[in-house]
Amino acid sequence: MNLVDNKIISSKEVFELNEVPKSVLVIGGGAIGCEFATFFNALGSEVEISEFTPRLVPIEDDDISRTLKREMERQGIKVNLKTNVTSYQIINDELSVTLDLGKKEEIKTYDKVLVSIGRIPNTKDLDLDVAAIDEERGFIEVDSMYKSISNENIYAIGDVIKTPALAHVAYYEAKRVAQIILEKEVMSEHAIFPSVTFCSPQIASLGQSERVLKEEGVDFKVKKIFFKSSMKAKIKGDDSGFIKITHKTSTGEILGASIIGNDATELIHEFLVAINANLTIEDLSKMIFAHPTLSESILDTVSGH
Amino acid sequence: MNLVDNKIISSKEVFELNEVPKSVLVIGGGAIGCEFATFFNALGSEVEISEFTPRLVPIEDDDISRTLKREMERQGIKVNLKTNVTSYQIINDELSVTLDLGKKEEIKTYDKVLVSIGRIPNTKDLDLDVAAIDEERGFIEVDSMYKSISNENIYAIGDVIKTPALAHVAYYEAKRVAQIILEKEVMSEHAIFPSVTFCSPQIASLGQSERVLKEEGVDFKVKKIFFKSSMKAKIKGDDSGFIKITHKTSTGEILGASIIGNDATELIHEFLVAINANLTIEDLSKMIFAHPTLSESILDTVSGH
Repeated sequence: MNLVDNKIISSKEVFELNEVPKSVLVIGGGAIGCEFATFFNALGSEVEISEFTPRLVPIEDDDISRTLKREMERQGIKVNLKTNVTSYQIINDELSVTLDLGKKEEIKTYDKVLVSIGRIPNTKDLDLDVAAIDEERGFIEVDSMYKSISNENIYAIGDVIKTPALAHVAYYEAKRVAQIILEKEVMSEHAIFPSVTFCSPQIASLGQSERVLKEEGVDFKVKKIFFKSSMKAKIKGDDSGFIKITHKTSTGEILGASIIGNDATELIHEFLVAINANLTIEDLSKMIFAHPTLSESILDTVSGH
Repeated sequence: MNLVDNKIISSKEVFELNEVPKSVLVIGGGAIGCEFATFFNALGSEVEISEFTPRLVPIEDDDISRTLKREMERQGIKVNLKTNVTSYQIINDELSVTLDLGKKEEIKTYDKVLVSIGRIPNTKDLDLDVAAIDEERGFIEVDSMYKSISNENIYAIGDVIKTPALAHVAYYEAKRVAQIILEKEVMSEHAIFPSVTFCSPQIASLGQSERVLKEEGVDFKVKKIFFKSSMKAKIKGDDSGFIKITHKTSTGEILGASIIGNDATELIHEFLVAINANLTIEDLSKMIFAHPTLSESILDTVSGH
C-alpha cells in the first residue's frame, strides 16, 4: 500500500487499522464523521474535524448542532466549521494537509485523515445501460413504487436510489417493494423514520424540525428540557443534552422531536410511536412514565411550559 | 448498634454500609430483593436469595421469573424458592440463619441479612384517629378520588394508600388529586403504569400479562423475540432476555408487554405510548425503527409469527 492510501482512509479502512492513530483529521462533520471523531477521541487519538458548512450534523436541528460542537470541544476535539481541505502533501513520510479556514490557512500534519463526506451508489459494475436502466450520478431513478422509470421490470431500493442511505430505510423499502410486487401492499409511502447518530453524546431525530417548520410557515410551538434535570442521566454519569419537541399550536399534535444525550437513539422511538399514532403533547402528558428512567424526561418535556 | 441490628438490615441501612459484605442473604425475591441481590453480586459479595413463593418477582410474567432465575444463577447467585427463613441466632459474633427449604432445613452463616419483604405505610405518627381517618394495617382508606372514606376533607396518595408503592404512581396521583381538588380533572382513573425492576438484567412490564389474560378468559396471542437476535444487544455485550407482547386475537390490539434484558426499563415506554394510543401489532409492524438499536427488536417481535 502506498503512503497516501495508508494515510488517507475512508470509513471502510477504519476497520482495518491495527493501532490507534496518534492524530486524526476527520473531513466531513456529518453523522459518520461525528461518530468516528468521538470514537477516536475516546480511544485516545488527538482529533480534529473539518466541516465545510457552518454546522456539524447539518441535517439536524440547529440547537443539536451547537450542543454537539460544545460537547465535542469539551471532550478535547478541535472543531473547524466553514472549513475547506484544499490540498495535501507527503514530506518525509508525514502527511501535511492545508485547511482553508476562510480568514486564514493552516498547514498541519496528521497520522491519519478520515474522509467522510458521503458515499456514492455502488452501481458502476451493474451495466445499467445494457438493461436500459436510467441513472443519475450512479443513482437508479425510480418512481414512488421503486420501479425503474426506464425499465418497468426492474425495481430498486436502498442506497442505489435517492432515499436516505440508512439501513432501516432500506429494510422498510425491501418490505414495501415485496408487498408491491405481490400486490399486497399495506405499508405507507410516506412513513417517517428516525435519524440516528452514534456519536457521543448520541443524536436522534424524527419528523419535522424547527427549521423545516419555519420554512414551511407552520404555526408551531417548541418544548424543551435538559437532561440536567434528569435523575437517571445523573445516575448514568452523563447529564449532557436535551429533548426538544415541536407541536402544532392549534391542536398540540406532535410534529417532530430531536434528542441529544444518553440513549437518544432508543428514546426517539417513543416519539416514533407517538407521531405515528397522531398523539398530542397533552396525550403524552397524561401517561405514567416510570421513575427513575430517561424516558420520564419526555413526560417532563411535554408537562413544561 | 447491637450485633443483630448490625447484621440484619433493610433496604434503608444498605445505603449506610461502609464496606462490601462478604456474604449476603436476601430475604424476599420481589423487585427490591432482586435489585439488591444482583447489585451485591456485582460488587463481589457471595449472594443467596430466599423467596417464599415458587417464583422470583412474583408479580411478573412466569417466563420473566424463570429467565431471571437462570440469569441470576449464571451470575453465581444462589436462588432458593419456596423457602422460609424460620429463625436466626448469634454465636461467637456470627449470624446463623435457618432456611426451611421444604424437603430439608439448612443452617448457614452470613455476613449480612437483607430483609426485603415489603414496606408498611409510614402513618403511625400521624394520629389518624384524632382526625377521624380510617386506616387498615396503616393504609389510609380512600375512594376513587383519593378522598378519605371517613373524612372527606382529607385526600391521601402514594405509599399510604393501597395503590402500588411506586414513585411514578405517586407522582401521577399527586397530579390527579390536584386536578380533582381544583375541579379541573383531565387525568384517567385507570391509567396504565410500567412496572420496572433495576436488577441485572433489567425487567419491565406493562398492561396485562399472559397469566392475567388466561385467568380472565381473554382470547389472546403472544409474540416473543429473544435479544440473542439483536445486533445492538450483542454490541452492548449482553444479549440475554426477551420481549414478549400479548395482543387480542380478533383485533391485534396490544394488551401488554414484558421485557427482560438490556435497558428494558426504557424500552417499555414504547409500549406505554402504543397501548395508550390503542395501537395494534400491525400498526407497530408498519413503522420504521432505527438500526442498530434495541428498539428495533420490537419491530422484529411484532413482525414475527
